[in-house]
Amino acid sequence: MQFDKITIIGLGLIGSSLARIIKNKNLAKTLVAVDADRAVCEKVMALGIADEATREIRNGVKEADLVIIAVPVGACGTVAEQIRYALKDGAIVTDTGSVKTRVIEQVMPHLEDKVQFIPAHPIAGTEHSGPEAGFAELFKDRWCIITPLPHSDLKAVEKVTAFWEVCGSRIEIMDPKRHDLVLAITSHLPHLIAYTIVGTATDLEEDTKDDVIKFSASGFRDFTRIAASDPVMWRDVFLSNRDAVLEILQRFDEDLTELQKAIRKGNGAALENHFTKTRKIRRDVIEAGQAE
Amino acid sequence: MQFDKITIIGLGLIGSSLARIIKNKNLAKTLVAVDADRAVCEKVMALGIADEATREIRNGVKEADLVIIAVPVGACGTVAEQIRYALKDGAIVTDTGSVKTRVIEQVMPHLEDKVQFIPAHPIAGTEHSGPEAGFAELFKDRWCIITPLPHSDLKAVEKVTAFWEVCGSRIEIMDPKRHDLVLAITSHLPHLIAYTIVGTATDLEEDTKDDVIKFSASGFRDFTRIAASDPVMWRDVFLSNRDAVLEILQRFDEDLTELQKAIRKGNGAALENHFTKTRKIRRDVIEAGQAE
Repeated sequence: MQFDKITIIGLGLIGSSLARIIKNKNLAKTLVAVDADRAVCEKVMALGIADEATREIRNGVKEADLVIIAVPVGACGTVAEQIRYALKDGAIVTDTGSVKTRVIEQVMPHLEDKVQFIPAHPIAGTEHSGPEAGFAELFKDRWCIITPLPHSDLKAVEKVTAFWEVCGSRIEIMDPKRHDLVLAITSHLPHLIAYTIVGTATDLEEDTKDDVIKFSASGFRDFTRIAASDPVMWRDVFLSNRDAVLEILQRFDEDLTELQKAIRKGNGAALENHFTKTRKIRRDVIEAGQAE
Repeated sequence: MQFDKITIIGLGLIGSSLARIIKNKNLAKTLVAVDADRAVCEKVMALGIADEATREIRNGVKEADLVIIAVPVGACGTVAEQIRYALKDGAIVTDTGSVKTRVIEQVMPHLEDKVQFIPAHPIAGTEHSGPEAGFAELFKDRWCIITPLPHSDLKAVEKVTAFWEVCGSRIEIMDPKRHDLVLAITSHLPHLIAYTIVGTATDLEEDTKDDVIKFSASGFRDFTRIAASDPVMWRDVFLSNRDAVLEILQRFDEDLTELQKAIRKGNGAALENHFTKTRKIRRDVIEAGQAE
């Protein structure tokens, strides 16, 4: 499998990991990196993970067979608008965003019929950002959810699927709305909660904060890792998947209120019962091969 | 450093890890394990991690120089009441509970002046429970917080400190009330939140739940590990540290409401600002040597 030319727009953690794979596996005769940030372009060339790096987005996508949009989801619409007249006939455009419905709504109006947009979301990442943070093994054995549109060309879907398989991913085809609901629970709410709890700790008096950091291994530490994720990426995720996040957040809030009440009233049986149920979910996660 | 006789009460994850260390390092001429559960006693003998295992708590602590109470914090008072007349003069009693003020309140009235109670809390654990789950390296390079009482004998404090140092721990001396506040933030609230979010997921329709488990690597997975911790232990923690937990929970709730409002109103600047602040905390945790 090889493309004549692949263009990646946005060389952050995801984009730069893809660049490394494309170079390592020789998936494109030419790999062009597009990034609005001059320092990122320079870094990409210094790392040698693309053949060219440019801030000129229209030039960058010219003649590309595959264009991968790997910018924060709030910027996908603007990118589509910028590249629409520069794309060649038959080009495949894909993205890597953590939200699908809103991205589709924002990208589709700008893309001509002669172009195929196949949305995708690799469920992989770390708390680190930028082109130096990427690595070729990021997607290995991780899920990539592809959410084709009703009118998507099957051959284009197959090409995007094959591309992600070569990157090491396991593929799931899903409806965009369902994707956004499932990710609201598995990813967006956990991140929001982690951001909140770490924020609550930052507001403590200085000496208490020092102790919180010192003794963070007792649980808090895991939240600080999640809450160190890219601020702009996550801002856009919450704004773009607002309805699903707010719905799940409301359920979470009701459940938290119930546990809070049980603590206040000293209802040990209710607490123990709840904690026993949640233990089972961990076993399910392990059985599904998602943890050890 | 060696005691003539050490008795551990409660052979769960913490107690059985201590038993392994005491045997490996030969810290006692005799090590007695006391557990109310016959199956646990049998397991302890099968594992060979104590010289004796018994359900007879009074017999078990007789002539012991060091008694380690490693039961759920809600049971510490009852244990103290049971052993008070069986303890020898000059015995040191310590515990391993995650809450200190309430444990002290419940234990102290039962202990005679001829006995020294030195409360301690090793900040270490896994989501696994029971005597099979223990291991000798559990406390290595982890903090152990010791909260002596105003009238504590310095020599007894030194002995407990030396014991935990031999177990591999780093020692911090702290006021019990401060311990409970710091742990409410670093440990109790994170666990409560994880229990809540995993519980919220268990209430979803069956097919959504399957997808949540399948795609749990996107954030949710980390919470399932925390929410798999021992239900009885955690029930007791929340009941025993109620006031500090409820106070921190209220602050958390206010912060969550603020972020929720920012999402609803599409206030991207507020979100990005919050997420940027929390990222700094992660760097502090790494600098404190609590994460990589």
